[in-house]
Amino acid sequence: MATLKKKLQGLVAATLTPMTENGEINFSVIGQYVDYLVKEQGVKNVFVNGTTGEGLSLSISERRQVAEEWVTQGRNKLDQVVIHVGALSLKESQELARHAAEIGADGIAVIAPFFFKPWNKVRAEEVLDGIQDKIPSFQGLKFSDTDLLDFGQCVDQNHQQQFALLFGVDEQLLSGLVMGATGAVGSTYNYLGKKTNQILEAFERKDFSSALNYQFCIQRFINFVVKLGFGVAQTKAIMTLVSGIPMGPPRLPLQKATREFTDHAAAKLKSLDFLSTADLKGRNLGACI
Amino acid sequence: MATLKKKLQGLVAATLTPMTENGEINFSVIGQYVDYLVKEQGVKNVFVNGTTGEGLSLSISERRQVAEEWVTQGRNKLDQVVIHVGALSLKESQELARHAAEIGADGIAVIAPFFFKPWNKVRAEEVLDGIQDKIPSFQGLKFSDTDLLDFGQCVDQNHQQQFALLFGVDEQLLSGLVMGATGAVGSTYNYLGKKTNQILEAFERKDFSSALNYQFCIQRFINFVVKLGFGVAQTKAIMTLVSGIPMGPPRLPLQKATREFTDHAAAKLKSLDFLSTADLKGRNLGACI
Amino acid sequence: MATLKKKLQGLVAATLTPMTENGEINFSVIGQYVDYLVKEQGVKNVFVNGTTGEGLSLSISERRQVAEEWVTQGRNKLDQVVIHVGALSLKESQELARHAAEIGADGIAVIAPFFFKPWNKVRAEEVLDGIQDKIPSFQGLKFSDTDLLDFGQCVDQNHQQQFALLFGVDEQLLSGLVMGATGAVGSTYNYLGKKTNQILEAFERKDFSSALNYQFCIQRFINFVVKLGFGVAQTKAIMTLVSGIPMGPPRLPLQKATREFTDHAAAKLKSLDFLSTADLKGRNLGACI
Amino acid sequence: MATLKKKLQGLVAATLTPMTENGEINFSVIGQYVDYLVKEQGVKNVFVNGTTGEGLSLSISERRQVAEEWVTQGRNKLDQVVIHVGALSLKESQELARHAAEIGADGIAVIAPFFFKPWNKVRAEEVLDGIQDKIPSFQGLKFSDTDLLDFGQCVDQNHQQQFALLFGVDEQLLSGLVMGATGAVGSTYNYLGKKTNQILEAFERKDFSSALNYQFCIQRFINFVVKLGFGVAQTKAIMTLVSGIPMGPPRLPLQKATREFTDHAAAKLKSLDFLSTADLKGRNLGACI
Repeated sequence: MATLKKKLQGLVAATLTPMTENGEINFSVIGQYVDYLVKEQGVKNVFVNGTTGEGLSLSISERRQVAEEWVTQGRNKLDQVVIHVGALSLKESQELARHAAEIGADGIAVIAPFFFKPWNKVRAEEVLDGIQDKIPSFQGLKFSDTDLLDFGQCVDQNHQQQFALLFGVDEQLLSGLVMGATGAVGSTYNYLGKKTNQILEAFERKDFSSALNYQFCIQRFINFVVKLGFGVAQTKAIMTLVSGIPMGPPRLPLQKATREFTDHAAAKLKSLDFLSTADLKGRNLGACI
Repeated sequence: MATLKKKLQGLVAATLTPMTENGEINFSVIGQYVDYLVKEQGVKNVFVNGTTGEGLSLSISERRQVAEEWVTQGRNKLDQVVIHVGALSLKESQELARHAAEIGADGIAVIAPFFFKPWNKVRAEEVLDGIQDKIPSFQGLKFSDTDLLDFGQCVDQNHQQQFALLFGVDEQLLSGLVMGATGAVGSTYNYLGKKTNQILEAFERKDFSSALNYQFCIQRFINFVVKLGFGVAQTKAIMTLVSGIPMGPPRLPLQKATREFTDHAAAKLKSLDFLSTADLKGRNLGACI
Repeated sequence: MATLKKKLQGLVAATLTPMTENGEINFSVIGQYVDYLVKEQGVKNVFVNGTTGEGLSLSISERRQVAEEWVTQGRNKLDQVVIHVGALSLKESQELARHAAEIGADGIAVIAPFFFKPWNKVRAEEVLDGIQDKIPSFQGLKFSDTDLLDFGQCVDQNHQQQFALLFGVDEQLLSGLVMGATGAVGSTYNYLGKKTNQILEAFERKDFSSALNYQFCIQRFINFVVKLGFGVAQTKAIMTLVSGIPMGPPRLPLQKATREFTDHAAAKLKSLDFLSTADLKGRNLGACI
Repeated sequence: MATLKKKLQGLVAATLTPMTENGEINFSVIGQYVDYLVKEQGVKNVFVNGTTGEGLSLSISERRQVAEEWVTQGRNKLDQVVIHVGALSLKESQELARHAAEIGADGIAVIAPFFFKPWNKVRAEEVLDGIQDKIPSFQGLKFSDTDLLDFGQCVDQNHQQQFALLFGVDEQLLSGLVMGATGAVGSTYNYLGKKTNQILEAFERKDFSSALNYQFCIQRFINFVVKLGFGVAQTKAIMTLVSGIPMGPPRLPLQKATREFTDHAAAKLKSLDFLSTADLKGRNLGACI
């Protein structure tokens, strides 16, 4: 693994894996996807093959290919390309980790196996305690729970800023920031990165009132889609709609978002000024979603 | 129910119900308890007969007596005395609500019955929507979950400040404040009210760095006791230790905190400067806990 | 508590609490209810004020009145009237237990408080171990889980037949019988008691093939209503339909069964020969449900 | 996939995957394992690469090798070798299924992906309904839940004996048999197959009293080890102890059973006459576990 030149900070998009209508990976649009994140959303870090990327629905061979494509396309454009290498089989995780190092990824992330698992829940702050002694290359964690006692105590341990502590609950990012998050990883940053950067900027200049207003706008959208049923399939539909890049359907066992969902989501995005009619010009929504 | 003169704000202590060694209610120390909260902890609102007060372990007759004693002792000293009237039987809730009005309590709070319950989880922001049409005297809610999307959307609805939106997760109060909480209800405010008021004050003057430091101090304590096993019994032991007012054991099915717990908690409180040796002068800890 | 003359055995109906349309208890039909159970369903034991009876939705005073009415109406007709006295407040459980003894109930049953509860799950077979040393009047338990390792080990301990071990999962009664249950408590025995007695009889004469067939018939009905949404409200609607005795609506927070549910359930009962057109003669279904 | 000559019936051992001390697969003892199952335990069917076999902790390549070894060693000795091919990635499941057919396995079994999953729980009896129209080669299912309403309704549908309905909760096998199971799959059949066959035989000749006694003996053992903490690691230790064939440690994230566990389990097995001193003659228990 290459030494990290700088700490991961700011927003990290948990990338989707674009697919063709028959469920094969559509590598051809990943270059366009990189440009869209950087230019349109102001997001320069990606988290590849995670939950949003359907990493665990891909074969090991596919995960390697997807990782390679992001590293290749992101060169000189993205700050950091982090590859998720978690798998139920630790042997496969190790293989993916070695591969990520070989191709020059900026980092790896890993979830522990979860079919067999330890009998006791371990909290993040306990894992963090002394971890660089065990894993010298350890750089930080993505915290995707709302237990801010645990997250806060991770931050409390991080007094020398030795770790990147990335918050992973997009809809309440502000609560992670106030508790000391150094960045954030999430699926909504694919299409709401620009809006979310406004939260980061307002927070940075201590304008909490504006930060909260931006957060509420984003919450209104998430709250709306959560009630309709919101997951990776729906994220693919929204990203296709907003970016114009076809993300395709999810792979089974997920089911494609319904047309009804997409119509409702589009209307909500427009009502919140997250999507302009100009953005949609020339797009055949029926075809691309 | 008396009309509320002013919105409930700031800290609200979820009061313990003091008991004698054989599990009967010790009404005699409630006056002293009121003075301690006001003078030593700077807390002028109480939430009586809730979880912390073992309300559901008391008989209806006992709940009435406890409510009366707090209203009586709190007169001209406390800002608001809120009585929790939730019960599995709605008939009993109604009886308790009428009683609270008769004795001049400042408000009631209620949890829905939870043995039989609706098939679908309803979110707080959905409950809040239009509630003053259905319950004209509705004043606000205590939100004791870490789902800040839901809480945020409650705040988002509250643009006319028509509701008191009280956050109930002490160990991450700051995340509730940044999301727009107008106050907080919790069991730790019995003995950490003064420390917690420092968070409120720092937040008010936009000194987020200090607010976070105060929050971390409190988290260190809560994190410590949570790992030892922390509930109402342990809160009684800690409050006895810190305030010097005997809270007694909890009522079955809860078990008294162990001496080992209390010793560890006392050591931690001292190490965090939450408890001075002077505080403990002349107290027979072995006897009072 | 009166000494039990004989062990509780066979079927025990978990009784419904009949209510008027406005949610008050309809004591006037309990006598008729007793006669129906004995004569039409062949059920001579009742379990009063349990979940099926909405015991925890009643006030303590109502629970006493309901218990008295069942004891009075059941005299010389029922074998055993067991009163459930569980409550969140142990003081109230104790009051109800004393009352049950005073009115001459044949036994009490109790669930442990469940708002505050022990930290570790305790299995029934552990509770049973040595219990008569602690509670000399202990007679047995109602086991309402599908964990038949636990239930089997209760039976394994019961080699001197000192306990009544009653199985409480109606839809798989046969599995409880083969594991050694000495009887059964359930809500379906109100209206399927006669059919269920056929299982008991076939099992007794070792005709397992018939026992299984009877069990499957009952499963077809339960499977059908479970998919529609099945609880106490729906049980009240079915019992009203089958017995002709008006059970009324449930008390809030439960909602009355829909007309659609009742129509579907009635059609299913007829298709399974659990309800004949003759049974329904002269009943105004629209009015009585 | 070869056409199944006969329905799968009787006991099926969910096989362990023998490993060396450093966590590599120990293929060399699988032949001996086959002979042990057939000759010492009277078990002639195996279920390979399931939970007990740590299938999901193996790489795809390892799963193929393990499957091949069981098919090869089982030829002319075992009745049926069933390969579990479930994986989080359906692509990988498909690859494993094709491979199983190529090597001449007698059948495959599969769990659905469980990281992403459908929003609604589907019951087994609903899955079974009309399944042979969708999957003409479908042969049956392993039911590993204690919900015998669902299992019973599967049996109820199986009136033409078109399916093998195998029960998978070893500790309550008798309840599955009475509900109509046609066989059983489990980890305890590796070392308690002979004892369990006594249940099957007693049940077959309608000697329910003996069947229940045999079941209770097995329950006493399982109940004992469950309280100590019982999983695949512990099963490996017990199988090593009883069979004398070294199963080795589990692969991470599981941890090897403690020596204390093995000592307690051995003592219990002896006290139940499940293990004789003669069985242990010449074994260096310290070394082999």
